[in-house]
Parts: sequence; structure tokens; C-alpha cells
Amino acid sequence: MRNILLYISYDGTDFSGWELQPGKRTVRGELEKALTHLFKRPISLSTVSRTDAGVHALANIVFFQTKPQTIPVKRLPAALNSVLPGDVRVLKANDEVKGKAKGLKVKSKIYEYLIFNGETCPPLIRRYVWHLKPRLNLAAMKKAAKYLIGKHDFTSFCAAGGAEQDHTKMLFAVNINKKKIKIWGGLEFEVCSLKFQGDGFLYKMVRNLVGTLVDVGLGRIRPEEVEIILKAKDRKRAGRTAPPQGLCLIEII
Amino acid sequence: MRNILLYISYDGTDFSGWELQPGKRTVRGELEKALTHLFKRPISLSTVSRTDAGVHALANIVFFQTKPQTIPVKRLPAALNSVLPGDVRVLKANDEVKGKAKGLKVKSKIYEYLIFNGETCPPLIRRYVWHLKPRLNLAAMKKAAKYLIGKHDFTSFCAAGGAEQDHTKMLFAVNINKKKIKIWGGLEFEVCSLKFQGDGFLYKMVRNLVGTLVDVGLGRIRPEEVEIILKAKDRKRAGRTAPPQGLCLIEII
Repeated sequence: MRNILLYISYDGTDFSGWELQPGKRTVRGELEKALTHLFKRPISLSTVSRTDAGVHALANIVFFQTKPQTIPVKRLPAALNSVLPGDVRVLKANDEVKGKAKGLKVKSKIYEYLIFNGETCPPLIRRYVWHLKPRLNLAAMKKAAKYLIGKHDFTSFCAAGGAEQDHTKMLFAVNINKKKIKIWGGLEFEVCSLKFQGDGFLYKMVRNLVGTLVDVGLGRIRPEEVEIILKAKDRKRAGRTAPPQGLCLIEII
Repeated sequence: MRNILLYISYDGTDFSGWELQPGKRTVRGELEKALTHLFKRPISLSTVSRTDAGVHALANIVFFQTKPQTIPVKRLPAALNSVLPGDVRVLKANDEVKGKAKGLKVKSKIYEYLIFNGETCPPLIRRYVWHLKPRLNLAAMKKAAKYLIGKHDFTSFCAAGGAEQDHTKMLFAVNINKKKIKIWGGLEFEVCSLKFQGDGFLYKMVRNLVGTLVDVGLGRIRPEEVEIILKAKDRKRAGRTAPPQGLCLIEII
């Protein structure tokens, strides 16, 4: 058996997330349908990052096992993209001959969350940002973010329903910056970017971190309180959960 | 009576264009519904640019007449946006006291068309680009574009169904360039941008110009042939019509 790795990108807007759910349109469901069509036998996919409903991915990694195959790996992306819907694309395919464990060792993941902080959210970017009208205090948010960096038990930021027993994760970096999106014409849209790099993330952890940092930015929580929230290991102590459409899985290292 | 001007932006993806159509969701329909709700009487809108189904607008201008009003013009954008769907936003409202004619004199309009020219179209930008796999020859397209600039009868690029009798328009500039879209993470998507500035555009004219320039870029039409096509004043001589989702009305001057 061989492990085939697929590097995929998707627009989460019209998906009920990665994981299969009866009667729902999911990323895994669409990909398995395409693979089953191509290989003419049922294929089951795994992933290193199960994203939630509405969350986007610039580059996620998924994998499946197959016998030494008839379809060359190089031709898989084009073959799959020809049958997949436009909101999910296979960017690259690798044949991991050295075994599953080696091929799938994830050192870190990078997520980015975008916030449009202003009165009127431009319709053309609304699918990819959280629209917040009151002005955010980025300096306070940056201060609060420092308490989150490092190896911690992130129970306070883990939603119920996650499968993991151990809530200890290593957060390497949290970068909060203003940045400009320029797509059409000369117009630039300024957004706040919150980038998280860690060795792994718990269920809804990024969105819970963003929600709490936003509460800091709005003056509802003091930056120092974030340390207390973290130590409390209690979900009820942290802020709200940020909506999914602002979140994008950027990279898996 | 006073003329109220609204500066609006919309994502054309889920609209059947600007103009009212029975049973269809249109930009005008949604705006008139919101205005009628706000003013508690039927309000009919006009525009300086009726965009087609699927075409976007960064900034379009629409207007309506009203009696000296109870709602201050300054408060109109927020009031309208609170009842409008997220894919259309009112950016600004002006009270044109000097009369209709003066307020609505359009000197020029700028449209931009984006093409993703590569094997795999990133899902996150697919709503705003035309995906073309074969490599475009931009130099040939730029050469062809020069024949289009100036005052011409653009009948060859006017779709049937337009209301205008006079097909003479002034095209001030056509700029064709590669540009980079950078939204998430460090990843950049390279797209081809075709920008058109003119004193007015006929029905589907921009999309027909793009279609013909793309045919030049693919080697189907020689750059010099564009001059012959223009002089033929015959729609059948020009290239295909580019799909709507790549087109965005950028500015009205």
C-alpha cells in the first residue's frame, strides 16, 4: 500500500466543514466522491487539519491509501480538479513511499484571521472577514497575545465536542497587524490580521482566541486578564467565539 | 424635489444584474425594497451604470427623487445598510440640490477585468476572475488594445439588446498588466488585469472587448485584425464574450 498526499485549497463559504455529515456538503465528501469516481472503488480520506464549517484553507493536507496505482500521481491534481466543484482544488499530489508516519509529521500550522474594522464592510471581501464596527485597540490586543505564546493548557479556549484529551499545545507566535487588501482598481481595504502559528490547535481554539483578543480590543477584557483566563482552564472564563468566515488555514509545515 | 445620490458597492455573484426582472434578485430590486421600507412610499431608482448579471461594482452611482426629507442624507447609508443584504452596501449619500443634470454628468467610467491565467484557479478568488489555462500573450494583447483607444463606432463589440442608437464611444485608455493579489498569509496570486476607461460603454462592450483581446492573447486573432474588426461594425466579426464574474465597475468620474 502507498500513501498519497493531496495538498488542497478550498473556500469554506458553502461547505459544512471538512468532516463528513449526513445530508451536508463537506470538503471530505466532495473529495471522496471525486476520488471514488477516479479510482472506481471507495476511498476514505484523512486529514491533518479538520476545519469547521465556513473556515477556508489556502493549503491543507489530506491523504489516503491505495495499491500501486494505475493513475500516475502527477496527473492526479488535473484529473481530480476536472470533476471537483470550483470551491475545492487539488494543488499538488505526492506519493509517500516512506510510510505514513514520516510523511505526515506536522511541525506547525499557521492560521490567519481577518477582521474588517469599520463602519461599512466592502461586499467584495465580506466572505473572508469578520465585520466589527467599534474601533479595536490593537496595542491592547498585542499585549494580551503575549500571554498566550508558549506551551500551555488551552482548555479555556477549547470548545466542547473536541476529541482530544490533552489540551496542552505549543503556540509559537501570534502576530497582530493591520494590512491592506488590494484586488480591484486602486482601492485598498484595510483589515486587521491575526496570525497564529502552533504545533496544533484544539477544537475551535483559533476562533476562541480571536474572540477573546477582540474582547480585549474592545475594552471588555483587560490584556492581563488573558493570563488569568488561560490559567483557569475553564472555557466559560474566555471571550466569545469569532465567526468562521474570517478564518483561513494558511500553511502546514 | 431633491435628487439623492447613493454611492454603492456590490458583489455581483448572487445578483441577476442591476435592472429589475420579474422573479429575479437584482441590485435595483434590493435597493428599492430598502428605500421603500425606509421612506414608507415606493421609490424608483435610476443609475449611471446598469451592470449585467454577475458583474461586480466597487463604486456605482444611483439616484432617486424625493421631497425635502425627514431622514438626513448623512444618516442614509447606515439606515439603508441596516436593512440591505451584505452583498450590496451604500458607501455614501449626497443631496444634489443643484439639479439632476449637473449632479449626474459622467465624464468617464473605469472597468477592470481580472483573469487568472494558470492551471489551477485558487478557490478563494474564483468568484472574481475568469480562469484561463492556456498562457496568454500579453504583449500581443497590448498591441491589439492600441487599435481600440480613441473615438470609434464600437458596434462590433456591442451585444444585441442594448438600447443605445449611437454606438460611438470614446475609449481613453486600455491598460493590460500582470498584478498580484495578496490577501491571506504570504501567498500571492498573479492575475492579468485589463482596465478600460471610457466616456461610456455599450451593452456587454467591456466583456466583448476582453473576449476579443483574449482571443488575440491565445493567437486566434492577430493584433492587427482588431482594427479590421472595429471597422467592420459587425458583432459577428469580433471574439467571444468574456464571462461576467471577472468584471468590476471600479469608478465613475
